[in-house]
Formats: sequence, C-alpha cells, structure tokens
Amino acid sequence: MTSKEKMVLAALDLLREAGLGSAGINGVVGRSGAPKGSLYHHFPGGKTELITAALRTAEARVGDGLRRAFDRPAPLGDKVRALFRATGRAMEANKFAKGCPVAAVTLDLDEASEALRQVCGAIFDGWRDAIADGLEEVAAGDRRQVADLILATLEGAMILARARSKKDPLLGAGATLAGVLEARMLPRRRPVPRRRR
Amino acid sequence: MTSKEKMVLAALDLLREAGLGSAGINGVVGRSGAPKGSLYHHFPGGKTELITAALRTAEARVGDGLRRAFDRPAPLGDKVRALFRATGRAMEANKFAKGCPVAAVTLDLDEASEALRQVCGAIFDGWRDAIADGLEEVAAGDRRQVADLILATLEGAMILARARSKKDPLLGAGATLAGVLEARMLPRRRPVPRRRR
Repeated sequence: MTSKEKMVLAALDLLREAGLGSAGINGVVGRSGAPKGSLYHHFPGGKTELITAALRTAEARVGDGLRRAFDRPAPLGDKVRALFRATGRAMEANKFAKGCPVAAVTLDLDEASEALRQVCGAIFDGWRDAIADGLEEVAAGDRRQVADLILATLEGAMILARARSKKDPLLGAGATLAGVLEARMLPRRRPVPRRRR
Repeated sequence: MTSKEKMVLAALDLLREAGLGSAGINGVVGRSGAPKGSLYHHFPGGKTELITAALRTAEARVGDGLRRAFDRPAPLGDKVRALFRATGRAMEANKFAKGCPVAAVTLDLDEASEALRQVCGAIFDGWRDAIADGLEEVAAGDRRQVADLILATLEGAMILARARSKKDPLLGAGATLAGVLEARMLPRRRPVPRRRR
C-alpha cells in the first residue's frame, strides 16, 4: 500500500469512527504513520482534498455492495432484508463503533465546507441509483423514490443501531420496510380487486 | 435567559450545525458569550455534562413535536406525510445548515464517549415510543417496529436533505413511506381477498 493510500484509509476510518472533527491532518498523520510533509505532498488541497478522497473510497465500496445486493434475481423484500441484515452483521463486527462516513461528514459540515456537502450529495445520489437499478418489481417511474426511501431508512437505522449498540434497529427496520414494500409493490403486478388507494 | 440556559442552547446549535467536534468548551463560550469560568461553574462535569444537557433539550422539543404529530385523529399516512413535510420546511428555513443533534453526536462518538452514546440511545428510544403511542391503526404488537421504521427513515431523510440542500428527500421519503404503510396497514382492518403474503 502506498503512503497516499494509507492516509486515505486512515482518514476513512477516522470519519467512520468519530466524524469530520477527528479526521484532521494530525489525526490522519497519527493513524497512518505517514510523515506530515507527505500529506501535503499527496494532498496539496489539504484536508478537503484528503476527506474527499476518503469519501470517494467509501462511495465505491458501498456502491459495489448496493449493486451486488440489488442486481440479482430475488424478490424485492428479500433483497431489502438481506441488505439490512448484512449491514447489521458488519456493524456488530465493528462493535458498533463505525458508522457511514458520508452521513457523518454531512452532519459535521460547517459554512466552510460547501465543497464537501456537494461531494456527499453526489455520493448519496449514486447510491440511490445503484439501488434503483435493481428495483425491477417497482414501476419504472417510482424506482428512484423507493430507492431513496431504502437508502434513507438504511442510513437512519445505522444511526439507531450505533446509538443502541445493537443490530436490532437494522433487522427490525429492514424487515418492516421489506414487509410494507412487498405489500405495496406486489399488487402492482397482480391487481387485487377493491384495493384502496 | 440565564447564562446556563444560553450555554445549553449555544451547545445545541453547534451540535446541530457541525456536530460534536464544534461544540467544545471554546466553541460554546464563543457562541454564548458566557464567561469560560461560568461554564465550569454550571457544568462541573465539563463537556459531557454540557452536551448531555443540550441533547436533553432536543429530546424534549422533538419529543413534543412527535407526540403532537402522531397523537391526533388522522389516518397514519397523513400523519407521516405531515411530519416529513414539517421537517422539510424547518430544514429549509435553516437553509439546510442544521441537522438532528442526536444523530450528529452518535456519528461523532469516540471510545471516550460511552456515556453520550447511552444518552443518544435513550433519546431515540423515547422518540420511538412517542411515535408508537399514536399508531392506533397498527396492530399493538407491531407498533414499536413501525415507529422505529418511521424514526429511522426520518433521520436518514434529514441527512439526504442536508447533503442535497433541498427538502425533496424528506417529501419523497415521507410520501413513499406513507404510501407503503397505508397499503400494508389498511388491509389489516379491511381484509382484501387473495392478497399475497
């Protein structure tokens, strides 16, 4: 691993653990073991450039995971339940000490961080689209909205899971969301007489 | 307003804007205009005690809002849509520069902040229960799960709204969640023949 890669991964870890405030230059230098001078060499744009690189790494990893979760021949409800269960297992493996770095940065933005806000917004858009692409069961015009609902629920449930230090919020929200989506979506394919709406 | 109250509200504002890292002693002293000495006088437990007081203020405010939103004679879907719309309006009024302080603290926790994690977990539990109490349309045994789903979706949609700097994620997630909840819950009360599940 190059020292540049080490710094990016150190920043990503710090963002996931304790947000933007923890991923300053000194924190990243300390975590990665890279010399401070090389940080400015690799990231002449300083903290914003380094944090952006860390967020882009998360974007690719999580995006791949979402595409794998949704781009497979399984019922929508099963995909949703599996995604929330896998997220719960991953958080449990980290002792609930790591969250979503994009959510953390979004909540830690100050007036000086408009560039980072735009990066976060674009990453969430991409993740929504990665989910939407696998929602064949949903009417085409509704896919982005349903994908956004799944993404919002996942992000929120990760926060509840971390605050409660258990995966139940992810399992519960995943199962409940899967259940209500199945009930809503399946009738679209097999119309039921006298359904209200 | 007492200087103690000023400090608590300054801390709450800072948490909502830029998370735990921004709500240190110096930040709160600067924002509130209170003398540094009086901070330690009012909060001998230091930052943890001050942050806890700020989170408890948010707990009461948001809890009251959730109880008002759900404890009224309206269909479940209408309550959900109204809650997400009101949250979108409030975030827009703040130019999307303020998020949920409890979510922000949860994502900014480090190993030293187990006490704050427990505060956050208990606040989320209370908010879930405030929602659950107003879910008369949902079977009693499912109310906490559905309330947790609504809370998780709200927290996540607030993050998407802030990252995108627009309220569409709240309106969209609220409307979609309301729609799928209606489709799932209403058949419980009015069984429809040949519904799959």
